[in-house]
Amino acid sequence: MTGLKAVALGGGRGLHVTLTALRRLTDDVTAVVTVADDGGSSGRLRRELGLLPPGDLRKAMVALADDGGSGALWARLFQHRFGGTGALAGHAVGNLVLAGLLEQLGDPVAVLEAACRLLGVRGRVLPMCTEPLEIEADVTGLDDDADVVRRIRGQVAVATTPGRVQRIRLHGPGGAGEAPRGCAQAVEAVLGADVVLLGPGSWFTSVLPHLLVPELNDALTRTAAAKVVVLNLVPQPGETAGFSPELHLDVLCEHAPTLRVDAVIADADAVTVPDRLCRAAAALGAAAHLSPIALAGSPDRHDPVALASSIRRALDGLPAAAGAPSSTTLQEHRETRGGDEPWR
Amino acid sequence: MTGLKAVALGGGRGLHVTLTALRRLTDDVTAVVTVADDGGSSGRLRRELGLLPPGDLRKAMVALADDGGSGALWARLFQHRFGGTGALAGHAVGNLVLAGLLEQLGDPVAVLEAACRLLGVRGRVLPMCTEPLEIEADVTGLDDDADVVRRIRGQVAVATTPGRVQRIRLHGPGGAGEAPRGCAQAVEAVLGADVVLLGPGSWFTSVLPHLLVPELNDALTRTAAAKVVVLNLVPQPGETAGFSPELHLDVLCEHAPTLRVDAVIADADAVTVPDRLCRAAAALGAAAHLSPIALAGSPDRHDPVALASSIRRALDGLPAAAGAPSSTTLQEHRETRGGDEPWR
Repeated sequence: MTGLKAVALGGGRGLHVTLTALRRLTDDVTAVVTVADDGGSSGRLRRELGLLPPGDLRKAMVALADDGGSGALWARLFQHRFGGTGALAGHAVGNLVLAGLLEQLGDPVAVLEAACRLLGVRGRVLPMCTEPLEIEADVTGLDDDADVVRRIRGQVAVATTPGRVQRIRLHGPGGAGEAPRGCAQAVEAVLGADVVLLGPGSWFTSVLPHLLVPELNDALTRTAAAKVVVLNLVPQPGETAGFSPELHLDVLCEHAPTLRVDAVIADADAVTVPDRLCRAAAALGAAAHLSPIALAGSPDRHDPVALASSIRRALDGLPAAAGAPSSTTLQEHRETRGGDEPWR
Repeated sequence: MTGLKAVALGGGRGLHVTLTALRRLTDDVTAVVTVADDGGSSGRLRRELGLLPPGDLRKAMVALADDGGSGALWARLFQHRFGGTGALAGHAVGNLVLAGLLEQLGDPVAVLEAACRLLGVRGRVLPMCTEPLEIEADVTGLDDDADVVRRIRGQVAVATTPGRVQRIRLHGPGGAGEAPRGCAQAVEAVLGADVVLLGPGSWFTSVLPHLLVPELNDALTRTAAAKVVVLNLVPQPGETAGFSPELHLDVLCEHAPTLRVDAVIADADAVTVPDRLCRAAAALGAAAHLSPIALAGSPDRHDPVALASSIRRALDGLPAAAGAPSSTTLQEHRETRGGDEPWR
């Protein structure tokens, strides 16, 4: 699959897994990273300096960094967190470097290019938007009356809510009502890709936000790329507590009604009722691919090697040659697949 | 003078000037940098994380950094200071990177090698000691009785004392009584040099400390290198308020009685009584070289171009070829010069 143009949308640990898997398949990987974080070192930098939260960008760079030589040294430094009990405690050095570069250069795309060169990144890391965003969620179950809908704001608050997230919205730096503007290079990457991956990761706060950026949503609709959704292994305490695999897909569908998907990858052991998942996938236009993709001994963590194999098989299963699916419509694809049960 | 092995001892802005001048003469420049700073961003990092204060090391690297390409970008980032009113305000990004590398790698020499590669440094930057030091000064003039001697501790306190600094001492991390141990690579650099520069800079807190590290002092005595002292243009408010150029040399002599010097460079306009300076230089075994070395319009700042010319002339004036003065003793050198008046 040399030359395959792969784009992965996400953030945090989930995106790290996808990128680690994709670099086994191709050198041409672009990460499109969420920029709505308001917690930890990123949140502190965002509040103190008014910058794009750098943490998810840093993690994506590290996933694609050179394994040896000076790139590996700088990647380790980027991940290093200051200890102690002082003003710097908990800050990742890479976040501080990215913050300094953002102040120096202004343009986040130029900042990430410079930092990617330093880390010997194979591929590219882009923000989904070039300005920091805020996530707002409609959440139920926070009141005695379980149907009362409350608005919860901020990534950390949404990710950890004890209530049930019904729907999220994104606000640009201008606040409520201002639609976020997609990073032009990220939009181009999606349009020019052979395969686009969505998930795994914090569903409402790292995966769905990309679909709420109008330019990115539009690019995902228009692109000829094969679109693959990778599901989480376990529900996330807080934002997706109690969610079944198929409910993750239903929620995706609700947030992006026009989105069509080619393949849904899930861990065989994490899916209790394969038929239900298959139906939810079919509602998005996708075939479901079930195989063991969890790390041995860590049922809540993806195995990047197994995930890479699963992605490869999913792409091989598409009617057009993987990497050039443009001549085949998804409808033809679905007709070709007919009634086979690829998850068995 | 290609191939000339030059070593500059100092810290802060003075060392920056020397390094900028030396890189006009040779690519083989080693900076040996003081590590007793306890103020500003460096002091905060030192107190918070217990690390070598990185600020003077950073400034030396920037002086030797590549003028173009990615080295220049990283040098600008290293100098960038966070603004605002938060926990990071005033921290130089380079200090944070060096602090992170110190925590990651431990060995300051390895840290500086990695950072120098990043900045495309031509030459080398070394700490004078690999552990943070504390400066202590005997200061008079702080009491009603002008002869009372008080001990003042810490670089900032000494540099800004309203009293008169009589003498300084260095303490290693073990506190009073523990002699600081010189960085082995710095000692080697001095022993292998063709020329060693001392000054300009904060006399008591950036220039003299090197002479109080036993291994460095010994290396300066034993080295065959030409030794050149560059004097400050104006007394420094606080630590050398009211000091004449010759008093700077007297103080040097008191702190390193065995040190012999080949040349003393001073700005012609800054020396009121050339004869006195000449005598003070001769007491160290040196000839005085007076020429205009201040920046036009900034009588308190050295012009690196003029300083480079002055260093070149001083080396040319030595009896052995500059860069290989080992076959001529300093005594022969002085006899050769006889009664000429090089400052006219």
